[in-house]
Amino acid sequence: VADAASLADDVTAGNRRALARLISLVEDDAPEADETLAALYPHTGKAHVIGVTGAPGTGKSTLTNQIALEYRRRDQTVGIVAVDPTSPFSGGALLGDRIRMRDLAGDPGIFIRSMATRGSLGGLAWATADAVTALDGAGFDIVIVETVGAGQAEVEIARLAHTVIVVEAPGFGDDVQAIKAGILEIADVLVVNKADDPHAEGTARTLRAMLDLGGSMPDRRVAHHGSLADRIEPDRSQGPAGELESSWSVPVEMTNALTGEGVPELVDRLARHLEFLQRGEERERRERMRAVAAFDAWLREALLRALLANSETERMSQMVDRIVAREIMPQQAARMLVDELEWGRDSRRNA
Amino acid sequence: VADAASLADDVTAGNRRALARLISLVEDDAPEADETLAALYPHTGKAHVIGVTGAPGTGKSTLTNQIALEYRRRDQTVGIVAVDPTSPFSGGALLGDRIRMRDLAGDPGIFIRSMATRGSLGGLAWATADAVTALDGAGFDIVIVETVGAGQAEVEIARLAHTVIVVEAPGFGDDVQAIKAGILEIADVLVVNKADDPHAEGTARTLRAMLDLGGSMPDRRVAHHGSLADRIEPDRSQGPAGELESSWSVPVEMTNALTGEGVPELVDRLARHLEFLQRGEERERRERMRAVAAFDAWLREALLRALLANSETERMSQMVDRIVAREIMPQQAARMLVDELEWGRDSRRNA
Repeated sequence: VADAASLADDVTAGNRRALARLISLVEDDAPEADETLAALYPHTGKAHVIGVTGAPGTGKSTLTNQIALEYRRRDQTVGIVAVDPTSPFSGGALLGDRIRMRDLAGDPGIFIRSMATRGSLGGLAWATADAVTALDGAGFDIVIVETVGAGQAEVEIARLAHTVIVVEAPGFGDDVQAIKAGILEIADVLVVNKADDPHAEGTARTLRAMLDLGGSMPDRRVAHHGSLADRIEPDRSQGPAGELESSWSVPVEMTNALTGEGVPELVDRLARHLEFLQRGEERERRERMRAVAAFDAWLREALLRALLANSETERMSQMVDRIVAREIMPQQAARMLVDELEWGRDSRRNA
Repeated sequence: VADAASLADDVTAGNRRALARLISLVEDDAPEADETLAALYPHTGKAHVIGVTGAPGTGKSTLTNQIALEYRRRDQTVGIVAVDPTSPFSGGALLGDRIRMRDLAGDPGIFIRSMATRGSLGGLAWATADAVTALDGAGFDIVIVETVGAGQAEVEIARLAHTVIVVEAPGFGDDVQAIKAGILEIADVLVVNKADDPHAEGTARTLRAMLDLGGSMPDRRVAHHGSLADRIEPDRSQGPAGELESSWSVPVEMTNALTGEGVPELVDRLARHLEFLQRGEERERRERMRAVAAFDAWLREALLRALLANSETERMSQMVDRIVAREIMPQQAARMLVDELEWGRDSRRNA
């Protein structure tokens, strides 16, 4: 514990090596990571956390670099977590990203870390959350989470961000990938990158038309972990976002990440979104959403671990046999096992 | 319950309207769905469940139709679940898929159902599992699960399938989307679609080279829900797949979904994969993997529901306040709450 406290102190003092070590501990799911993060946690909540996501091939990584450079010009420090939910196959891609980031290397106001999955995509989302906590606690003004791919992992990870940028490459009609992948509705800012492409204007128009149609759809960042959110804050977490949310209309920005064109305007927009969040109750609302979602996920994890510690392996294994034999469905087996628990009622009876 | 039993009877008797109703109940998360599925469950386990996944724009839907048509030529009946983890925005895309499927409509040996998410992506994976159970129980020889997008949802959904097809569009180098999205390692069969594209051969070569490199990587379908799998079958579920698994070497097939070229060869390959599964213990191994993963997910769900039913909202809400105030981390809050539970130990003390 003393070690954890001193590692946390080193991180808050701006020691890059300590920060790198903490993130490695997080990646390895080491027990010291939790203690260190707990010690760091009171120092967090200051960074503007920005998510950058979109389909492969949209130029997200290059754009992330440009955004970071623009923030540096504005004297803001930037931590970047590049999340790559891919396999051992993709070592090359990761290396490529790192090489592309050479413009940023050597600047003490920048810290870049690539995180790859080690078997569990769900785990990656939470490891990323912990890495964001580490960078936030280390005092970076801006923390950018960049995700590769387009799917549930991105939605999970976007939940971490105050401001979510969805990057789209020019295309037409059916080719608007963000729509196909269903990540449009998590965007606070949409970017059509490769603005020099002849289809860029058309894609921007299509996206604007879709945003006009989209009006009152539910916020997916809330909806995912339904049960705990429904219970704790039914009013805040259900249905279409509240009035304050809807007073932010998602802009469509055009950039060219290769030349940097459009990037200062994009960063202005990000700053305006942060102001919007801080003006009303919106930031508080998002902080609570995020807290509830994380609490929900960790409760499930802690409950299952406790159940496993208190159940006989033999009995669990027999239930799996019965599921495989098509005698009972998994949901029935789960309910049977959970119904047998006493849920602390006996402890009250004893008291 | 009588209703559920009679609905299950109608489904097993091949009544399409009953099947459609059951899947609607599943989508709506209606309580009758569970009872009906439980009644149906003993009649399942006969279908060859095939997953078709890949990045947007690879021609997956058209290929799925062609595969279905080929199976019909071979006198096999086919149920298709087209899973679209997207937003209200994408109503158009879904409609488009349905229109594209008009070749298949009107054939009583085919049943097609599109499923879209209603807020929860995690929920969608399990609703899809239930829809597969429904189609399996209805007696379809082949059940195809087609997913749009590329991400964790696809991995979750692939877990349902005996045979997973990952579809790739021709590209070069960095553009191999399945690699970027990290879904290559869930493939039993890789398909390069749009075989008439000049880059198709090169893409197939790249994929073959990558498969040669990939050798002994862990099976992500097992790794995701670690804790229960580790507990119940540490030998079967850990590390690289067993010897039997590795005796299937993933083929790379070329197809042109527009003309149907290569589709009979692909379907031959799917049949050979099914034979492979049935020859050794591989099918049993996968069935157990699937059972453990489903049991794990439903245990988490049931545990959280039980906890919520037995905890005070006020106390949960206070914990969220403390998380938001950065006093405690979500994982600490979860552990505190779970540590307070008695885990049935008191019931033994009473006995």
